[in-house]
Amino acid sequence: MDILFENAKVITMDEAAPYLENAYVAVKGGKIVYIGEAAPQEQAKRRIDARGKLLMPGLINGHTHVPMTLFRGLSDDCELDVWLREHIWPAEDKLTSESVRAGTELSIAEMLASGTTSFSDSYFFVEDIAEVVQTSGIKANLSRSIIGNGEDFENMPSVSEMRELFSRFHMAEGGRIRVDASIHAEYTTETKCRMKVAEFAKENNLILQIHTSESKSEHENCITRYRKTPTELFLSEGLFDGVRPLLAHCCYITEHDMDIIKAHGGSVASCVISNLKLASGIPDLPLMLENGVNVSLGTDSVASNNNTDMFEEIKLVATLYKGISLNPTAMDALTALCLATVNGARAQGRDDCGILKEGYDADIIMLDFDRPHLVPCHNAISNTVYSAHGSDVVLTMVRGEILYENGEFKTIDIERAKRGVMA
Amino acid sequence: MDILFENAKVITMDEAAPYLENAYVAVKGGKIVYIGEAAPQEQAKRRIDARGKLLMPGLINGHTHVPMTLFRGLSDDCELDVWLREHIWPAEDKLTSESVRAGTELSIAEMLASGTTSFSDSYFFVEDIAEVVQTSGIKANLSRSIIGNGEDFENMPSVSEMRELFSRFHMAEGGRIRVDASIHAEYTTETKCRMKVAEFAKENNLILQIHTSESKSEHENCITRYRKTPTELFLSEGLFDGVRPLLAHCCYITEHDMDIIKAHGGSVASCVISNLKLASGIPDLPLMLENGVNVSLGTDSVASNNNTDMFEEIKLVATLYKGISLNPTAMDALTALCLATVNGARAQGRDDCGILKEGYDADIIMLDFDRPHLVPCHNAISNTVYSAHGSDVVLTMVRGEILYENGEFKTIDIERAKRGVMA
Repeated sequence: MDILFENAKVITMDEAAPYLENAYVAVKGGKIVYIGEAAPQEQAKRRIDARGKLLMPGLINGHTHVPMTLFRGLSDDCELDVWLREHIWPAEDKLTSESVRAGTELSIAEMLASGTTSFSDSYFFVEDIAEVVQTSGIKANLSRSIIGNGEDFENMPSVSEMRELFSRFHMAEGGRIRVDASIHAEYTTETKCRMKVAEFAKENNLILQIHTSESKSEHENCITRYRKTPTELFLSEGLFDGVRPLLAHCCYITEHDMDIIKAHGGSVASCVISNLKLASGIPDLPLMLENGVNVSLGTDSVASNNNTDMFEEIKLVATLYKGISLNPTAMDALTALCLATVNGARAQGRDDCGILKEGYDADIIMLDFDRPHLVPCHNAISNTVYSAHGSDVVLTMVRGEILYENGEFKTIDIERAKRGVMA
Repeated sequence: MDILFENAKVITMDEAAPYLENAYVAVKGGKIVYIGEAAPQEQAKRRIDARGKLLMPGLINGHTHVPMTLFRGLSDDCELDVWLREHIWPAEDKLTSESVRAGTELSIAEMLASGTTSFSDSYFFVEDIAEVVQTSGIKANLSRSIIGNGEDFENMPSVSEMRELFSRFHMAEGGRIRVDASIHAEYTTETKCRMKVAEFAKENNLILQIHTSESKSEHENCITRYRKTPTELFLSEGLFDGVRPLLAHCCYITEHDMDIIKAHGGSVASCVISNLKLASGIPDLPLMLENGVNVSLGTDSVASNNNTDMFEEIKLVATLYKGISLNPTAMDALTALCLATVNGARAQGRDDCGILKEGYDADIIMLDFDRPHLVPCHNAISNTVYSAHGSDVVLTMVRGEILYENGEFKTIDIERAKRGVMA
């Protein structure tokens, strides 16, 4: 075997045994080949003593726009309209292939350093993003976000980019990179356009990302125009026929919308910090879960978060819903972790990750559980959800490759990435 | 001068100039003796190159119970009653002087490592706590929490401990340690008891800490019994005559309560993460601020948080109120920082800290702003509030003494503290 972790606390997220107190985890050919409390027979090329450390599945960031790391702190605390029109869109107008690569590289570095091993993205300059993902070693579901009315669809540059991204990168690197389809949102597209993108998704068996019911006005304007919620409208347009949707935000979806999402094997990517910060609202995750929807978590872009630390999302989700419902059992720690791992993998259409289990991809992170704020450890799941931060991650492995270890990036020139972003 | 920081980004929190991009900060005899963009004349014993770093006032944790670090992750996600009766109270019954010292030492280490330079506490075993505070170098307002009906008040062991704490530690270490008075809460005391504690506070000019309107049932039961809110009841009992209250939690206080607090120069210590996690509710901080109340932030104990990272509180406050009000201007970044610095100092009755300014105590923290999640830095206040974590702190200074630097504790044997807590 390639690597053997010894003496580790392990959160497996495997329903059969979600936690092991002192275990071995063996990795070979990118896969987990053994997990258990007894020492495996085979010799390992490298042994990692994980005493005082915790292993868990890498976190899955279900919704982000990586190049927007360039806009960290560019504008906060103002109306959404002002934020977009006066700050974000003008900044996006100035993006270049070079700046997008720098932003992407830094964003991936930030994710790896805080325990994220896979992310779902929608943006433009997608081939630049994909090439950086390729060399970085991280997993990603990438998509070219489509905006427009759908007239002259085939001649839109964005559509060529979507097709080019698909043909060059779908299932690249042995499936480490997947390509999704992406409709930007109901309010930025028209029916014809949406149907064309959905058709492309169906033809190629791709997940379909759509920003959905993020703000109250977006949701209500749609109802005013069509007497349908955005999700109902999408259903009526046939967008979900044979297509698994990944709907981002969903602050205002109804129980009927939830039924639609569930019936089509879809998922929600909720971005609670971004929703709070942009004053969009609060998605009702407990109700979605009760209705059987696959809920995953995302950070959204750094422009509205302003980092990509998934541990912040996990803790917020595990506390916020208790506070707003006055019910301390509204969302337990293990469920919150599940959203960022098991459900995230499902939302990406990846059935071999999100759990530490034999035969699954070795997407593993290791946390230093010996730091003052993680002692004592009465309950490792509690400490992970309520006490830990992304900065406690000391090792990040994707498909058996260590991409980050003790502050060092193995595939990214971090100083160059920082310089690139500040250029 | 003792120490000169050079080339620093500086958040001063001084209204005249809250931020300096490239400045010098000089420290001598425990005080800040110079801040400015020009180099000072005097030579320094030690010069610290703060290029790529940010200096800001140490954070002030307005409400905690430090020994409860022993109970990190002991119990979560259950009803308050079950949590207290089945888990926390039985665990507290087993506390010893030794375990309290270990818990306190680890808690202080955690606070120093995440940028907290002062805290307000109420608990028992208070002399053990005070002795650990004394050797650690941190600032604290300590109090012996009083519970009871007030019959035979002078013979209560808790009252002796309160008096002993006061006589041994009030204004000890040149005022680094202050003693407050503390009534545990309305529902755990009777009028006679409360009046006696308040009398003690008044006689000695002490701040009076009280858990107030933390849960809905506590608040409403008081109204049912007295036709008064807890704050109104305290006013009617004369507790605030000549006494500055520090009311913790205040999830349910009314505008009339806010007027009462303001009229008595009082403060609120809000503990939003704890309130969410225990499903207590959400204190209306924007309304309190609008009504002129001095609002500070606290983590509450680690048993209900489950860490003492004040950066988490700051970010939550700066995002949560936007989300629940659907108003992106409900709480801006600088205001959130103010709660954890300037207002915290005021709540502790300390008029010489919370701001980096000549003549003020040198309670300074330094953050490494060169880390991936803090690049780029379009706005240092935004990055501090929305992107940073306690783990970005690389230096913590209290009254000119460096207590923590690059992972090393100068006054605490961290390995002993960890062992003590796990014993």
